[in-house]
Amino acid sequence: MLEKYIKAALKETECDLVLKNASFVDVFDGNIKTGDIGIKDDKIVGYGVYSGKKEIDCKGKYVLPGLVDGHVHIESSQATPEEFAAMIVPHGTTTIIADPHELANVLGMNGVNYVVEASKNVPLDIKVQLPSCVPATPYETSGAILGGKEIAENIVNQNINGLGEFMAYPSVLMCDPDTLKKLEATHAAGKIIDGHAPLLTGDELNGYLCGGISTDHECITVEEMREKISKGVYCHLRIGSYTRNMDLVKAITPYNYRRVILCTDDRHAADIKKAGHLDNALKRAVEAGLDPVLAVACGTINACECYGLKYRGAIAPFYYADLVVVEDLKDFKPLLVLKDGEVVAENGKALFDTSKRYLPEFVKNTVHVKEFKADDFKIEIKSKKARVMTTESSGVMTGEAIIEVASKDGDVTLEGTDLLKMIVVERHKMTGNIGKALIKGYGFKGGAMGISVAHDSHNIIILGDDNECILKAVNELAKIGGGMVIVDKEKGTVDSVKFDIAGLMSSEASEIVQEQSKKLADKAYDMGVDKNKEAFFSLTFLSLAVIPHLRLVDKGLFDVIKFDFVPLEAE
Amino acid sequence: MLEKYIKAALKETECDLVLKNASFVDVFDGNIKTGDIGIKDDKIVGYGVYSGKKEIDCKGKYVLPGLVDGHVHIESSQATPEEFAAMIVPHGTTTIIADPHELANVLGMNGVNYVVEASKNVPLDIKVQLPSCVPATPYETSGAILGGKEIAENIVNQNINGLGEFMAYPSVLMCDPDTLKKLEATHAAGKIIDGHAPLLTGDELNGYLCGGISTDHECITVEEMREKISKGVYCHLRIGSYTRNMDLVKAITPYNYRRVILCTDDRHAADIKKAGHLDNALKRAVEAGLDPVLAVACGTINACECYGLKYRGAIAPFYYADLVVVEDLKDFKPLLVLKDGEVVAENGKALFDTSKRYLPEFVKNTVHVKEFKADDFKIEIKSKKARVMTTESSGVMTGEAIIEVASKDGDVTLEGTDLLKMIVVERHKMTGNIGKALIKGYGFKGGAMGISVAHDSHNIIILGDDNECILKAVNELAKIGGGMVIVDKEKGTVDSVKFDIAGLMSSEASEIVQEQSKKLADKAYDMGVDKNKEAFFSLTFLSLAVIPHLRLVDKGLFDVIKFDFVPLEAE
Repeated sequence: MLEKYIKAALKETECDLVLKNASFVDVFDGNIKTGDIGIKDDKIVGYGVYSGKKEIDCKGKYVLPGLVDGHVHIESSQATPEEFAAMIVPHGTTTIIADPHELANVLGMNGVNYVVEASKNVPLDIKVQLPSCVPATPYETSGAILGGKEIAENIVNQNINGLGEFMAYPSVLMCDPDTLKKLEATHAAGKIIDGHAPLLTGDELNGYLCGGISTDHECITVEEMREKISKGVYCHLRIGSYTRNMDLVKAITPYNYRRVILCTDDRHAADIKKAGHLDNALKRAVEAGLDPVLAVACGTINACECYGLKYRGAIAPFYYADLVVVEDLKDFKPLLVLKDGEVVAENGKALFDTSKRYLPEFVKNTVHVKEFKADDFKIEIKSKKARVMTTESSGVMTGEAIIEVASKDGDVTLEGTDLLKMIVVERHKMTGNIGKALIKGYGFKGGAMGISVAHDSHNIIILGDDNECILKAVNELAKIGGGMVIVDKEKGTVDSVKFDIAGLMSSEASEIVQEQSKKLADKAYDMGVDKNKEAFFSLTFLSLAVIPHLRLVDKGLFDVIKFDFVPLEAE
Repeated sequence: MLEKYIKAALKETECDLVLKNASFVDVFDGNIKTGDIGIKDDKIVGYGVYSGKKEIDCKGKYVLPGLVDGHVHIESSQATPEEFAAMIVPHGTTTIIADPHELANVLGMNGVNYVVEASKNVPLDIKVQLPSCVPATPYETSGAILGGKEIAENIVNQNINGLGEFMAYPSVLMCDPDTLKKLEATHAAGKIIDGHAPLLTGDELNGYLCGGISTDHECITVEEMREKISKGVYCHLRIGSYTRNMDLVKAITPYNYRRVILCTDDRHAADIKKAGHLDNALKRAVEAGLDPVLAVACGTINACECYGLKYRGAIAPFYYADLVVVEDLKDFKPLLVLKDGEVVAENGKALFDTSKRYLPEFVKNTVHVKEFKADDFKIEIKSKKARVMTTESSGVMTGEAIIEVASKDGDVTLEGTDLLKMIVVERHKMTGNIGKALIKGYGFKGGAMGISVAHDSHNIIILGDDNECILKAVNELAKIGGGMVIVDKEKGTVDSVKFDIAGLMSSEASEIVQEQSKKLADKAYDMGVDKNKEAFFSLTFLSLAVIPHLRLVDKGLFDVIKFDFVPLEAE
C-alpha cells in the first residue's frame, strides 16, 4: 500500500501524473513555491523535479489544494448530491462538510443515509454531519425527530463525521436535558460539534462553548469573530445565496488565520452557475484585502484540521492529490481540477459521469396531505383587525403590522388590498394541520403559488387570494411529490416544477431544473411578485420560527420575539 | 456532565477556582489578554469577570496553558514515571508524549504497559507512543522484539496514542516489508507516526514522508526545518541533555509557527533540577529571538493539535484547566501549576503524593548474564595492530584509530597506554555474547566501571583495564538488577547505584538517586575519567549502532559507515 508512493517519491518508479513547472501555494508556511508536483495513484508523492507517464505543463498557472467547503446544505441547490458534485467540482471544491438538515427534517436518518450513499457515486468527498436540531423548534410538525436517543445511536456511525450546526443555542444555555444528551453523546464518540450562534459573546458565548462546540459560521462583526477565534472556535467565512460575511476578512491576522474556514452554507444552483462556488469566495476574500495565500489556507488546510480530515488540504508528500489549477491568485478561475489524482474537471466542465444516481424509493413521494376542501382555507377575522406579516424587499427578516380587514361569509376579503393569504399545510403525517396568516406586500395576485421547501420542517407553504386555487396548489404539490407550483385562476392553468426528492430536490439534471424554475419564477413575477424578492425561495424562510419577527408554521402564527404563538386577530 | 460547566460559565453557579486579574497568553490569536479565568472542576469555563469559591490573584503575573512535551523518553531521567512527574510538573509541563523506547528494548510490551499504568498515579498526562524500532538494529541482542506483527496487534490499543519515532528511516526508503507493516497498521488505526530523520531532504524526505510520517525532532539546519514544515511535518525544537536545536527558532515565522513543537527527548534528572524543563525551552527560545507568545504556542497548542489532544493547550472555554502561572515571559519561572483544575505545584515544589508507585514484578530483576570467568574478557590481538574506538571530549560521535598494541598471555596489554577495554555483555537472554573493543582516551584507570543503560538494546557496557575487575562489575550489575558500578582494584571496593527497573531506572526517590549517582561519578573522575565527559552516561551511546563511526554491540565491533561488523584486528 505504501510502497508505490515511496518508490515514486524516490523516482524508483515513474509517477502516474506530474504537474510540471507549477507555482503552488504552500499552506504550511504561507509561501508560493515552484516545481513539479509528482502524483502516484491517488496521492502527491512529492515536489521537486519529477517526470511521469502523463505530464501537464502548469507554467504561469497556480496550483492550489482542492477547496474544502466547511459547511453546506446540499439541499439548497435543489440538486442531488451527484448533480451538486457536477456543479461545484469544476469550481475547485473537492471536499464538503455537508449537513443534510433539510433532508433529515423530512426523512430522518433515511435522509442522512441517502446523502452518505449518494456521495459514493462522485469524485467529491462528502463528509456528513448528523443534523442536530430536527425539528428546529418544538412548535411545528416535521417529518422526523432526531432526539437525544437518535443522535446517540447514530453519532457513533463511521459514516458520520460529527454533529451538525447546533442552532438551538438557547437550549444549550438552558441545559435542556435532551440537548445535553446530544452533545454528550457526540463527545463520547470523540466527534466534532458545529455551532451556530450569531452575535453570541461574553459569558453566553462561554456557556455555549462549554457545550463543547467547536465552530461557528454565523459571525456578523469583526469583534465577535475575533472573540470567537480567541476562545478556540473555528469561524467560517460564508458566501451563501442569502447570508454572507466575506467582509469579515478584516478580522484575520497572520496569527489567527489558522482558525478561519470558508463555507457556502446555502447557495443556489443559479448562484453557483453565475458566480461560482469557493473559487468565488477566494476571489471575494482577496478583493476584501486578504493575502491570497492566507485565503487559500482558509479554503483548504484549516477546514481539514478542524474536521479531522487527514492528508487533505495541502500540497505535500502523502497528501491526497486533490488539486486545482487556477489562472491566477486574483480571480481564481479554475482551469483543471484533480480529485485523488484523476482529472475530474476542465475549464468549468465536469468530466465525470453523473448519470449514475442513488435514488431509493424512500426519498420519493414524501408529500402526504389530508383531503382538504377549499373552505378549509377560509380565514375568519372576527375583530376586523388582523396581525399581518410584513416583509422587506430583500433579506429574511419579517415584521408585524396591525391592519383593518373586511370579511365576507366567514372569510377575509382580500380585494383592493395588498394582502395575501399565507397557508402552511402539514405534509408529512397527514395531521390536517393548517397554519393561516396574512402577508402584506408580496405582490402576487390572481390565484395561488407555493413550494414544499419551507424551513426547517418543510411543510407546504402557499400564498394566494383564492381558496380554490390554494386547494389546487396543495393538491398539485401532493401529486408531484413536492416542488413549486402556480395556479392561475384566470387562465385556469396549474404549472409546477417537481422536487421529487423529499419535496426538496430534483432528480432531474440541474440545468433542466434551473430552466424550469426560471420559467415558473417569471410567471410569478408576471402575476405581480415583487421583483426584489426571489419569487419562490423568499417564501421558504417565512416558516423559520427562529428569525424575528412573525413566522407561520403548521400549528399557527408564531412571534419569535415573544417566542410563542399569537392570534391572527389583533384585538 | 456538561451542565456544571455551562452553568458556571453563565455564572448561575460559582466557579470552583478563579485566577483573578490574569494576563494570559492567547495562543489562538497571538495576543496577551487580561481578565479572570474561571475554572469549574477540571475545566476552564471562560474568561472575563468571574468569582469563585477559591480565588488566586495573578496580578502582574502571566498565565500560560500547561506545557506539552512533544517527545520524551522518561527513561533518560532514570526515574519512575511518578518521580518524573514530580520533577517536571513543577516546571509547568502538564502533558508529555512519551516514547518508552528503552523500556521496550528490555521488556517489550510489558515496558510500554508499565508506563501506561504508572501514569495513572500522577497529575501529568502521559500519552504513550508505541516504540517502533525495537531493536533499533538487527545487529544486537535486545530483550524484546516489536516486529510488524506486534505493532499491528498493539497499535489499536486505546492506551496507545501513536507510533514512536521511526528511526530506521533507511528501512522506510528501502520499503522493508516489516517496516511497511508497522506503518500501514498505524494508518489503519488512524494514529500518528513520529519521525526521526536528521538532515533528510529532497526526494529522500519525500519518500520517507510517503510512509505517512508526521513529525521530526532531528532538524539540524534552518533550511531543513523549513523544508520539512513546508512538507507538512511538525518539527520539534529539542532541549535535551545531549541534543539541542533551540537555535532553529530562526526558522520560525508567523506563517509556519503552528507546526513547531517543543520537546526534551532525552533530559537527565540533574539537568531538569539545574535548568528546568520546557520552562527552560521557552526561556531559550525567547532569548534566541522568538516572540514569547509564539514560543508558548509551540509549547502548548501546536503539540496538542499534532497529537490529537482535544481541549488541551489553550486558555479557552471547555479546555482542561492545565495552567501555569509564571513570573514573566522572559525567564518563564513557574510559580503555580494547575492540572485539571487542581493546584499541583507551587514555587517549584510538587504538591502531590509521589509515594504511590506502580512497581510490578516484571520490571525488576531484568539483568540475566551467563556465568563468566575473568579470562572471558581477554582480548587477543594477533596482528599487533588494533582498530580502536576514539571519542571526542563531548558529543556522541566516535572515531576510528589504528594503533599498535602489545599482548601477553593471549590478552592485550594496556599498561602505559591510554587504552581501555570496552566490553558489552548481553544481559537479557543469557546468550553469553560478549562484544569486545578497545577505546582510547576515556581516562579511567585501575579497575572497571560500567552501566546497564546502553542504547538501544541496553546490554551491559563496561570499561576496564583488569579482567577480574570487569568480571566483578558484570556480576555486581547482575546482582543488583542493573545500574552503575565501579570496581576499584587497588582498594578492593565495589560501589554501585541500583537501576532496579529494567536496569534503566531507579525506584528510589530521584533526589537520592541523583546524590548516589553524583558520588559514583565523582569516584569515576577520581579514577581518571575525562572531566569533559559524563562519567557514566557518555558510555551509554557507545553501543548505539546508528551514529558514526565505530560502535560496540554484544555481537561485535560495528562500523556504522560501512554498516557492517569489522574485526578488532586492523590487518
